[in-house]
This record gives sequence, structure tokens and C-alpha cells, in this order.
Amino acid sequence: MLGKKRRIAVMAEGSFTPMDAKTALGVLRYRTSEVVAVIDSGRAGRTCDDCVGVGGDIPVVAGLEAAAAYDPDSLLLGIAPQGGTLPESWRRVVAEALLRGWDVLSGLHVFLADDPELSALARAKGCSIHDVRRPPAARPIAARRAASSDALIVLTVGSDCNVGKMTTALEVHAELQGRGVRSAFVATGQTGIFVADHGAAIDAVPGDFVAGAVEKLVLDAAREADVVLVEGQGAIHHPAYSGVALGLMHGACPEAMILCHQSGRTHMKLSDAGPAPRLRSLSEIIRDNERAAGWLRPAPVLALSINTMMLDDLDARRAIDNAQQLTGLPTVDPVRFGADTVATELMRRLDERKRRASNE
Amino acid sequence: MLGKKRRIAVMAEGSFTPMDAKTALGVLRYRTSEVVAVIDSGRAGRTCDDCVGVGGDIPVVAGLEAAAAYDPDSLLLGIAPQGGTLPESWRRVVAEALLRGWDVLSGLHVFLADDPELSALARAKGCSIHDVRRPPAARPIAARRAASSDALIVLTVGSDCNVGKMTTALEVHAELQGRGVRSAFVATGQTGIFVADHGAAIDAVPGDFVAGAVEKLVLDAAREADVVLVEGQGAIHHPAYSGVALGLMHGACPEAMILCHQSGRTHMKLSDAGPAPRLRSLSEIIRDNERAAGWLRPAPVLALSINTMMLDDLDARRAIDNAQQLTGLPTVDPVRFGADTVATELMRRLDERKRRASNE
Repeated sequence: MLGKKRRIAVMAEGSFTPMDAKTALGVLRYRTSEVVAVIDSGRAGRTCDDCVGVGGDIPVVAGLEAAAAYDPDSLLLGIAPQGGTLPESWRRVVAEALLRGWDVLSGLHVFLADDPELSALARAKGCSIHDVRRPPAARPIAARRAASSDALIVLTVGSDCNVGKMTTALEVHAELQGRGVRSAFVATGQTGIFVADHGAAIDAVPGDFVAGAVEKLVLDAAREADVVLVEGQGAIHHPAYSGVALGLMHGACPEAMILCHQSGRTHMKLSDAGPAPRLRSLSEIIRDNERAAGWLRPAPVLALSINTMMLDDLDARRAIDNAQQLTGLPTVDPVRFGADTVATELMRRLDERKRRASNE
Repeated sequence: MLGKKRRIAVMAEGSFTPMDAKTALGVLRYRTSEVVAVIDSGRAGRTCDDCVGVGGDIPVVAGLEAAAAYDPDSLLLGIAPQGGTLPESWRRVVAEALLRGWDVLSGLHVFLADDPELSALARAKGCSIHDVRRPPAARPIAARRAASSDALIVLTVGSDCNVGKMTTALEVHAELQGRGVRSAFVATGQTGIFVADHGAAIDAVPGDFVAGAVEKLVLDAAREADVVLVEGQGAIHHPAYSGVALGLMHGACPEAMILCHQSGRTHMKLSDAGPAPRLRSLSEIIRDNERAAGWLRPAPVLALSINTMMLDDLDARRAIDNAQQLTGLPTVDPVRFGADTVATELMRRLDERKRRASNE
């Protein structure tokens, strides 16, 4: 939750790469003008565009001292270590930022504001700590209420973690808005919250309340929208995060889904070096997601979003064409080539619903 | 976590029925000798057996004052209101128990020990508050490790909440132990923890760590056991709790499952009076659970456990026979008629594994 216009230094020490700095990347892509510098000592002197392909000339610097030259008012922790604990080295960095009077924006599972030393420091310096992953205090229990919403609820699902579920939802949302559709984006993870300034990190919600938290977000968004794009989390096939993925799916009760996949990814990303499960075929992943959604409400996968970040333009086109031929579905890389055909597909769906409604 | 031999007064005010007092029932069934009284003013004067069919002559009393006559040293909150918040009337009861010097055992989602007033009271009186639902401090991330365990991991899954998943796991575990098998029970909910004195309430664990918490419990149990009976939670078809059910399933990586169902239940239990989804057929539920487990590791449903609590003996037999004919699977009501055929089926599976292992 950025909450206001800021001047942000993004901490990405040791990890400022397209695959490792997920939160940094999201903020650089969607709040570009608010980032003044990125910290990663091993890449200091380069630009953001050079390191991760977004963020243009925003400089990468060696540390807080160097970042201070760009006059930030906030430090955003741009890496989300798996497990979410706070390494001691990070603790020192957070303390130093607070000492400089900067706000600290964190998406970690560990809540910095609960640390007595850090919170005392923030108080003393008149700055604040924003733990965007802190779950909502209200804990409604889901009851398939979103299935009765009048809005067209669309969920992005994934073949794995970190394949582009948030980005796809944001890009399709922007494309629809550009076409004059009343669209809403529902942020369900820390990066989405930083970008959208609302939402809830549902992977930090106690298991019993995951679906209920999503249901509330979706129903709130549906009040002012004809299409609700819900950011998915994890993947129903993932050994660690399948529960969050399914809880989110059943809280949202989508009417349609967009499957996101990174081209070239063959195995799931796990937390350690152990043998990672092989990804299933796109057709199997589509089938399984449709089955799981269908336990509560039928929801076809209407389109594919292929993340071609690691490919050149020619191979990217080829990857998209391949996926499209394999599945027969409209396929895009919304970042690279726009979300055009997916938006068109959703608008067709929207028109169909309107026709059906007026016939009733 | 009872932690030691206790003299327990169970609070079940307004809800001491077989369907509503789930935790009370579990403790009465498995820690019978430690319960001295149950509190439910509307049913005062009756016996436990009379109200819920277990607990024999243990008296139902009107309040804490009346319970005190039986000299308890602990108050156990025997109802788990959905949503897990603490009604103000309960707060007063907890405070009164602490004033009397009783320990308080709670499975609520709200942690009583975090309440400054209640914890100060406990300190002043030298007694303690046990919040068994508090998630483990360690937060490992699951990585399908349980699939490599040498033990036969068996998970109880359900057609809905509150159908007998814990009871089935406990009864099959006891039957196997009686036959000399090295069996372990993994408690994953508050009642199971009260009964077994170990485990973790995984529905209170943040979504990202649900599977990891279960994986750890299962691997720990597998160290000393040839069969690990894992208590399931929720149901993969449940609008509110499917995420916990799937996360638990994928953390446990079972090799076999037992499907639990309450005879006569036609609709899911939801949190409010809204339209509850109809239960699918047993065959569909079996198929979907096998599919979902198979995303990580193939696991057939080997047996059915039918909760016939609400039926007379004749109808109970009939319900069990029906389910058996419908599915072709060994079917029991372990509470009413024992877990014999299920235990036999698991032992056959165990023998098969041993034969296979010695042939390799």
C-alpha cells in the first residue's frame, strides 16, 4: 500500500534479476515514476532496464547511502524471500532506513511493525512501517457468494508460481478500461497491493479464512464494475501453494479463467534444491483448473497468457503461436504484445451475458 | 494440548448436541476419564450419554458454579464457533474460570493468551491459558517430501466438514495398534490436538505454510511408524475450506485415502443460512479427491467411513451396505461397528509394499 505519491528506493540486494526480484519488477513496471533508485551492490552503476528490462534509466546503486543521493522518502523491500523470515542483514538495512526518516514498505510474512526495536525507531523518527502482508482483521467465512455477483469474474491461474498472474490481470484490466469497460482489479498479493493501493495478501491469511477474504474483495470490487479481474496466487498443482490457489479460486467463484505460463518453464519452482515436480502439459493444467473451479461453479479457461520474458521477439511469437495451436485458445503475452485478443474474448463474453439477461 | 492428566469442565453452553459440540464430543469420547462435568444450562441435570451419546454418566451442569462441585482444574472450550471470534459472554466465563484458578484450554481462532486482561488474570492466579490453535512458530515450505517417506501415509478426506475425519483416523489408528502395527496419528485440528496431546491446527496456519506444516507433522510421525493416519480437514468441495483441505492433502502426500461421510447429509454446512451447495455423489467425491491427490502423488480411496450417528442400528447397517455396494469399497462406521475391514485393507496394502520392497 503506497498510500500516496512517494519517492521510493527499492531494496533488491543480491537479487535484482527478472526471476528473483518479483516485487521490485512489479513496482518498477506499474509505479515507475515513483522509484528513484534500486539497491543491489553487485549491480551498482547499471540501470534498471539493463538488469530487468523495465524501469528505464532508474539507477541501481550500492546501498542506502548511495540511494540517499536520489532523495527517497521510502524504502520498499523488493524481494520476498521464500518463507518470509527477516535475515539479520535486512534488519540492519530497515533500521538504517528508519534512522534516515524513510517510511518502510514491506511485503514480508514477518511483520516489521511488530518488532519492538524497529517500531520504536519509526516512532522516534516520525516515519511509518507498512506491512502490506498483514491479513485483514475481519474474518468472513466464504459461502460461494461471489457466484451470485452480476459482474463477470475472471481469475488468472498459473502453471506455477511467478509466471505472470498479477501482470496478466493488470494488463487485461488496463486494456478493458482503455476500451471503456467498467473493469476492476483485485490484488491478492503483496506486489499487487503495492501497485493497486488496495487488496489483501491472501497467502498470509489463516487457512480457514482464505476463501472468505477473497470473496469479500471480489464482492466489494463487483459493486462498481462489470468485469472483475482477480489476481491468482500459486497453482493448484504446486506442492506448497495449492491450498492458497484453490481457496482463492473458490472464494472468487470465477466465471472464466486465464491460464498464465512462462514459456520454457519445465519444472515447478520449489523452496530448495530437491527434485521439483515436472509441469504438466498446458491441456492437463487447463483441464484440472476447470475441474477444480467447477466443484463450485463452471469456469472455462478462455485464454492463455504466455510470459516470454526470456525469449527474443521471434521465439516469443513462436511460443505464443505454439500454445495457441496446442489449446485452440486466444493466446497473448500481454506485456510484450498487448492483451488485445483476451480483452476481445472477455468483451464477447460480456455481450453474451447481456444478451442472455435481456432475453430473460 | 492437555499436557497432563486433568480434571476438565467442558464449556458447551447452548450447543451440547452431537452436531454442534464437535470438540466436546471428541474429548468426551477419547479422554472420558478426565472430564468431570459439561456446562450447558439448558440441559443441566441430564447426563452426557443422554445428550450426545458418549461420556456415560458425566453430569451436565448449569454453569461454572455448579461445575465447581466436581472439583475441576481446567475449563475446556468445547464449542468452536465458526469464524472463531470470542463472544463477550464467553469472555466473562473464561475470566471466571481463571479467577477460580482453573487452566483454560481453547481451540478458538482468537488467542485468549493474547488478551491482556485474561493473561494478566492467569498470571495473577498462577494458572495457564492453552491456545491449541496457535500455529507453530516454524514455517517450513512444503516440497512433496512426504511422498518419499517409507511409511504408508493414509489421509481421511470428507464429503463435508464435521463428518468424522478425525474420529475415523483415530479409530483406524487404534485398531492397527491393537493388531501390533506401528501406527501413528497426526492431529491437524484443535480437537485432535486435545485428544492426542500433539499436532497443529493447520486451519489457523497462514495459507502459504499450510502444506509445509502438515508435511513436517507427517515426516516427524513417519520416523517411528509404518502407518501414518493423517486427520483431514474440511473438504475439497467446500466453499470456505477447500483450500485447507487441498493444502493438507498436498502436504501429507498420502498413498491412500479413506473417504468420510455422514449418512443422510445432503447439503454442505455453511456459515450462514444462505443456500448451501448440494453434496455430490460418493463416486464423484471419490473421483475428485483421487484426482486432486494425484496432482502430486497417486492415492486411491481405499475405504469408506460412514458416520451413522443419527440412525438406529438397522438403518445404520443399511446405510453402510448401500455405500459399500455403490462404491465397491470396504465400508465401516468405526465408532459403531469398529474399523476392522479398513484396518485389514491397510494391512494388505502394507504387506504388498513389503513384498515389493523385498523384490527390488
